[in-house]
Amino acid sequence: MSKTPFLTKEKAKEIIKSYPTPFHIYDEKGIRENAQKLNEAFSWNKGYKEYFAVKATPNPFLINILRDYGCGCDCSSMTELMLSKAIGATGDDIMFSSNDTPPDEFKYCNELGGIINLDDITHIEAVEKACGCLPKKMSCRYNPGGVFQISNSIMDNPGDAKYGMTHEQIFKAFEIMKSKGVEEFGIHSFLCSNTVTNDYYPLLAKMLFKLAVELKNKLKVNIAFINLSGGVGIPYTPDGQPNDIMKIGDGVRRAYEEILTPAGMGDVAIYTEMGRFMMGPYGALVTTAINEKHTHKEYIGVDACAANLMRPAIYGAYHHITVLGKENAACDHTYDITGSLCENCDKFAIDRNLPEIEMGDILYIHDTGAHGHSMGYNYNGKLRSAELLLKEDGSVELIRRAETPKDYFATLDCFDIYNKIISE
Amino acid sequence: MSKTPFLTKEKAKEIIKSYPTPFHIYDEKGIRENAQKLNEAFSWNKGYKEYFAVKATPNPFLINILRDYGCGCDCSSMTELMLSKAIGATGDDIMFSSNDTPPDEFKYCNELGGIINLDDITHIEAVEKACGCLPKKMSCRYNPGGVFQISNSIMDNPGDAKYGMTHEQIFKAFEIMKSKGVEEFGIHSFLCSNTVTNDYYPLLAKMLFKLAVELKNKLKVNIAFINLSGGVGIPYTPDGQPNDIMKIGDGVRRAYEEILTPAGMGDVAIYTEMGRFMMGPYGALVTTAINEKHTHKEYIGVDACAANLMRPAIYGAYHHITVLGKENAACDHTYDITGSLCENCDKFAIDRNLPEIEMGDILYIHDTGAHGHSMGYNYNGKLRSAELLLKEDGSVELIRRAETPKDYFATLDCFDIYNKIISE
Repeated sequence: MSKTPFLTKEKAKEIIKSYPTPFHIYDEKGIRENAQKLNEAFSWNKGYKEYFAVKATPNPFLINILRDYGCGCDCSSMTELMLSKAIGATGDDIMFSSNDTPPDEFKYCNELGGIINLDDITHIEAVEKACGCLPKKMSCRYNPGGVFQISNSIMDNPGDAKYGMTHEQIFKAFEIMKSKGVEEFGIHSFLCSNTVTNDYYPLLAKMLFKLAVELKNKLKVNIAFINLSGGVGIPYTPDGQPNDIMKIGDGVRRAYEEILTPAGMGDVAIYTEMGRFMMGPYGALVTTAINEKHTHKEYIGVDACAANLMRPAIYGAYHHITVLGKENAACDHTYDITGSLCENCDKFAIDRNLPEIEMGDILYIHDTGAHGHSMGYNYNGKLRSAELLLKEDGSVELIRRAETPKDYFATLDCFDIYNKIISE
Repeated sequence: MSKTPFLTKEKAKEIIKSYPTPFHIYDEKGIRENAQKLNEAFSWNKGYKEYFAVKATPNPFLINILRDYGCGCDCSSMTELMLSKAIGATGDDIMFSSNDTPPDEFKYCNELGGIINLDDITHIEAVEKACGCLPKKMSCRYNPGGVFQISNSIMDNPGDAKYGMTHEQIFKAFEIMKSKGVEEFGIHSFLCSNTVTNDYYPLLAKMLFKLAVELKNKLKVNIAFINLSGGVGIPYTPDGQPNDIMKIGDGVRRAYEEILTPAGMGDVAIYTEMGRFMMGPYGALVTTAINEKHTHKEYIGVDACAANLMRPAIYGAYHHITVLGKENAACDHTYDITGSLCENCDKFAIDRNLPEIEMGDILYIHDTGAHGHSMGYNYNGKLRSAELLLKEDGSVELIRRAETPKDYFATLDCFDIYNKIISE
């Protein structure tokens, strides 16, 4: 499968008249089609619900699109809870999958009626203290320890990962929670990030389904849902094979029918907490070539930098690049595509074969829809870009303004120096 | 050499009454003593000047301390130029060592009278266009290519680094610039980051001094300064040997007397652009233990996370940790010290031997004075912390307030949803 931009050069040029580069732009059509397909893949499960991992792309306008498909919000912090509330996602529409959680966040989640997904057994007491009592519906994160069958370098093996409770602890936790009035239980586990295999969810599901049966039989608890968390990824390289969500959904269904249904648990809801899969391919960072440099290598400098997209600089992550208008030109030049950070790692691509790039060319950096803008920082005093939405009708809407120097200096606004800085 | 906090537990407890953890705190006394010593190390050079690398710690109150020692500002972006101007650092007090630079930043630097340090030969034209003509004093960055004698994994070898001009280009650049009216020239090179050896600057100086003599003899240009840039680092581990700045200064002096003085260039000024060396050891991230977790490993959760200090999570960087009040206790427990990001890498330490940590204990994370707060991000909707200054007289002053949700959501303030979010 090749990578095709959802923007033409003409469309990009038109957008740039109103919104200068760099900016992230998202494709409403792509987001909708994918969300629709996800629901189809799990339509066999009556209670199925995706909780979008807000951290991936915490933009209310984008999450509102997903709300049309019944998606809730997977939150991990106070501000994410605030955002969810503002777009009307409260109650069962919130899954609070945090870790190392401060008490006030448990309290706020409970006030919103969100489902608290406990990372640790010690948090039972913390929630009780923070909220006065335990909510009627709660979830626990499970960490099987050791090594999971599917693994990549992004996360440690479960045994080295900070998340979740041990097998012994989850039994103990459920027992305590039941004794303290919890009536509906969920199980959650996150073992691997950005997998591109159709086997991850089904394998994880099998493990969690067996655990659920065990918990139910031993403790007579009502397992209301099993949360497969995130981990279903996207291929960043053009030759990568994307996940087939229909196959994944079917794989989970087979495990469900093999393990849960015979155990009389055919009413358990399946939840997911995907971020990257929901948004990643439907966002792009659009940037203009503003400098060329011919030294010991060939460099093209663009007007975006790691402040806008950190993954290539920090993780050495591959993001495909298309030079708009040169989609069919021969890739007979080899460039490092650099940002302006005073950090040598600020390169969107190293030794990348691309068509000849002229100054003013527009570069489309693929797959920035998740963990792109949200991971932006202000290192070197750089400002984070705007976010735009390419709507289904072809119009473009600003969905987050670009930062200005005022934003950058905001945390100095209680000092005289602030006025001096921004009076320019 | 061991690592000693500049705060006692008692002092920390007193500070926390006014400023809750987490926060970065800086030690005025340490900053001053170090800046003083640096000036002594280079006192043999009449024109010596340190340009503090603003990106390392862009706090006006801290840079103002360095201003007392004659330090200027090494800037790399528009906002850094704005900050410099506001604290009165203009003209020769600004060194603009940027790369992949947009034209408006050249223009603004020139308006402030700052010295433009050109990263690329193509930028001569860019500066001319942006500023109307070339300034009388300018500098060029040199990249020798190939492999430098001293290297570490932080940066690529010069031949793979994006910075600077080739040998041929710097001659051509000086020739063009001279013909266009530039009268005073500087040379700059940055070949290695965070070195802990007394040899880096002297070796680099030798190379640049030879180049300067060559340029002067061949092109009859007036080399006014040679800028050794940054690269002098600090040891992050307690057993690391710190750089001896007196030895470094003396090594540069010997190279100077060996190469420049005999060439009739005994009036060339030496400049440096250090960040980490000036501030790193004099900052600490202070955080409270709020969660403990006993699963497949022993975890202590703190109220800081990678949003406050990214280096351990992203680079696996070592930062020493002292449990305040337990400085002399046996380190007979092994912990992972975790932040609350929903990223498994959000760990300030892995398998670290520390005294037994109780909930409420205050952890002092060392050497966060540079590339600490400045590299902070808002991933997972986390807020960046306050910065405090421990003054010489023992009092504590807020020098940057902590972020609030309003700051986090600021770039949504042009939409109705903003009021809905922050009205809570």
